[in-house]
Amino acid sequence: MADALGIALVGCGTVGAGVAKLLLSESARLAQRAGRSLELRHVVVQDQHKLRPVELPSSILTKDLNVALHDPHVHVICELMGGTTTAKQVVLESLARGKHVVTANKALLADAGHEIFEAARIADRTVCFEAAVAGGVPIIRALAESLSANQITSIQAILNGTSNFILTAMAERGIRYSQALAEAQQLGFAEADPTLDVDGSDAAHKLAILAQIAFGVTAKPHEIERVGIEQIEAIDIRFATELGYTIKLLAEAWVAGGHVALHVAPVMVRKTDMLAQVRGSFNAIQLVGDVVGETLFQGPGAGMMPTASSVVADLIDLAVGRAQRTFDVAKLWSKEGRGFSVEPSEKVRSRFYLRLMVMDQPGSLADVCRALAEQGISISSLVQHEAPEGNSQAVPLVIMTHYAETGKFRAAVKVIDRLPAIQQPAVSYSVDD
Amino acid sequence: MADALGIALVGCGTVGAGVAKLLLSESARLAQRAGRSLELRHVVVQDQHKLRPVELPSSILTKDLNVALHDPHVHVICELMGGTTTAKQVVLESLARGKHVVTANKALLADAGHEIFEAARIADRTVCFEAAVAGGVPIIRALAESLSANQITSIQAILNGTSNFILTAMAERGIRYSQALAEAQQLGFAEADPTLDVDGSDAAHKLAILAQIAFGVTAKPHEIERVGIEQIEAIDIRFATELGYTIKLLAEAWVAGGHVALHVAPVMVRKTDMLAQVRGSFNAIQLVGDVVGETLFQGPGAGMMPTASSVVADLIDLAVGRAQRTFDVAKLWSKEGRGFSVEPSEKVRSRFYLRLMVMDQPGSLADVCRALAEQGISISSLVQHEAPEGNSQAVPLVIMTHYAETGKFRAAVKVIDRLPAIQQPAVSYSVDD
Repeated sequence: MADALGIALVGCGTVGAGVAKLLLSESARLAQRAGRSLELRHVVVQDQHKLRPVELPSSILTKDLNVALHDPHVHVICELMGGTTTAKQVVLESLARGKHVVTANKALLADAGHEIFEAARIADRTVCFEAAVAGGVPIIRALAESLSANQITSIQAILNGTSNFILTAMAERGIRYSQALAEAQQLGFAEADPTLDVDGSDAAHKLAILAQIAFGVTAKPHEIERVGIEQIEAIDIRFATELGYTIKLLAEAWVAGGHVALHVAPVMVRKTDMLAQVRGSFNAIQLVGDVVGETLFQGPGAGMMPTASSVVADLIDLAVGRAQRTFDVAKLWSKEGRGFSVEPSEKVRSRFYLRLMVMDQPGSLADVCRALAEQGISISSLVQHEAPEGNSQAVPLVIMTHYAETGKFRAAVKVIDRLPAIQQPAVSYSVDD
Repeated sequence: MADALGIALVGCGTVGAGVAKLLLSESARLAQRAGRSLELRHVVVQDQHKLRPVELPSSILTKDLNVALHDPHVHVICELMGGTTTAKQVVLESLARGKHVVTANKALLADAGHEIFEAARIADRTVCFEAAVAGGVPIIRALAESLSANQITSIQAILNGTSNFILTAMAERGIRYSQALAEAQQLGFAEADPTLDVDGSDAAHKLAILAQIAFGVTAKPHEIERVGIEQIEAIDIRFATELGYTIKLLAEAWVAGGHVALHVAPVMVRKTDMLAQVRGSFNAIQLVGDVVGETLFQGPGAGMMPTASSVVADLIDLAVGRAQRTFDVAKLWSKEGRGFSVEPSEKVRSRFYLRLMVMDQPGSLADVCRALAEQGISISSLVQHEAPEGNSQAVPLVIMTHYAETGKFRAAVKVIDRLPAIQQPAVSYSVDD
């Protein structure tokens, strides 16, 4: 058996503790899978005396990153501290010191993938990041290895478990966003500050990484248009259900007219679609490849042990030597690997759901239809329920359009929002068909 | 760029034609993914003049396997002819000649995996077989690489698209087995002789391969207990629906009491379960790993291009050098890789659905309940519909049991089948909860 693969963890929060636990408790199994021992030599932490969810021999705990960097028996640094400032320094220093890097840090890769991968190429070392997207779901390997005969043409993914938990609760039990969020927080599925989860930022980071692998697209997360789930109302979930759809927060990227369109947004998905069936905090990624057709990968998107499963799979791949070979050919975040350019969101074609609150008065429907027609948008279906008797308030008018350019649809909505019969701003979602 | 990887195909039916098409039409893409060219040098066929779904340069068509075996620029032989006799010779000769082997042949591996893998180890060559299980779904890599930090504890899989197509049609449209089969044949989803698909043999071959990777179990396909779908009646599908379940033909293997239980059988799956949502000819594999938890992989289980996607992924892995490393550490079908032993099916614990046709006469229900009680089996729910007025015929009695040993359940059913009030043999399915 070859020499042990020496490992140092930097950061020992939830994920780090899970990785340490797995390395320490399943060393025989992991050695068998890797063809050599995986030896945890150092765990670099800020506070050596903090209580952690895993018991670590005090000999391997250290506050000094240099202990790990200068240990010639350490081959891999696992950056599990999160954040983008210190974490980036740790990764770049590790590479410069000749260490491979395993990271679960989506924000770091989405922000600084180019710089990090260039540094790795210069140092002739490998960066692995299976855990950075969709936790325990091996989607990085699926894209970079398993489906390598394909040009991926579309990615549709549920990449944020918190949002999916909230939307599932709203859809299945008819509760409001605020109540569903409160429950998610009580159950530990949402952070005290859930902003990055529910506003689509987290999913945008992960989408940026997937789009790099699948399309060679380098899109900074802030360049990815995103809409969160905070504004979703119970009434639209009800209408979606009536129409045979479910609203899911999707991270989507697809080839359109030689470019790649990408966004994160609540999308109406047909109830019979596999993505509609993904419940609770699970993640799922639906890929279409030009050779294989449609495939789906699903599993836990976060959590201590699912994420540790992916980090340790990367360690095994490094020990076996697979990861280095994939790194060499994949040419991620490089000039040679550059692929598609990004389609401006205005040009993206989609079907749309449009819900208006309209005063029940002559001519209002005609005005709405005219605004759409002026942008060349045709209506696929339209439902206006009767106002409750004796009620002169606005009633919901729900329109499903045929395919239209996003820019033209937005222009029509702008006009509609100014019509005198329209009582509150239009609500709209793209519809996946 | 390294030298080209030289490839010969043996067999050019549906899958072979798909592979040839992909290699010829996407050579630039594949070279980029593999870091070197994939060069199709020979296609060995029985009849050089037969019309094929792909146009091949006549210079590469040959009837002589030796042309491929003696070409020093051929590194890989793709065995895509099917069958277990000649195919086995081709594989063993190829290995002996120093060629790597890629095969889509599930029956061959399930039958002769041990012999083939020993031959490969002796020749220091690699055997790849992603396409042998679940067509385009990269489940071999998921088990052997992506989830390598895990001990898999359970596999539940829809591995036969024909059966799933038929069951979907029966469940969604209430039609009978014979009608659904006829439709599947008309649409090309079922062979003229569908026996191996609908009797569970095909799924058992695939399960034997998955169980070898996940559990180190060497189970010959004929040792795997299997029940097909030919006997499934519309009435049981209706009752399943009423109870909140769907009947799926599942290939299952799971760790129980230090052993592995495995079988292929129609199983009642809860409607909210992801496997219940798998429609038509798709395949899906749900894996539970002790670290990651529950994951699901879904995609097209057969077809020219999906299967070609997996064959060519193997070729790319060989070109890159990943496949050789996985082969070395995985130790499949070897003494060192031997793992769990197989649990006798009698000992397997499950919940059961039991449907009896009972004469509505005093004491008959008591007799049935006593037969179950005598085997220590307790009843979870029981439904007996009233007989239509004036009808003295047998009425269906549907019982759901709590967990019980299969052997004891079968003993109880034997007794029940002999009761005077029972009008036809009991129908039973395991229930997945």
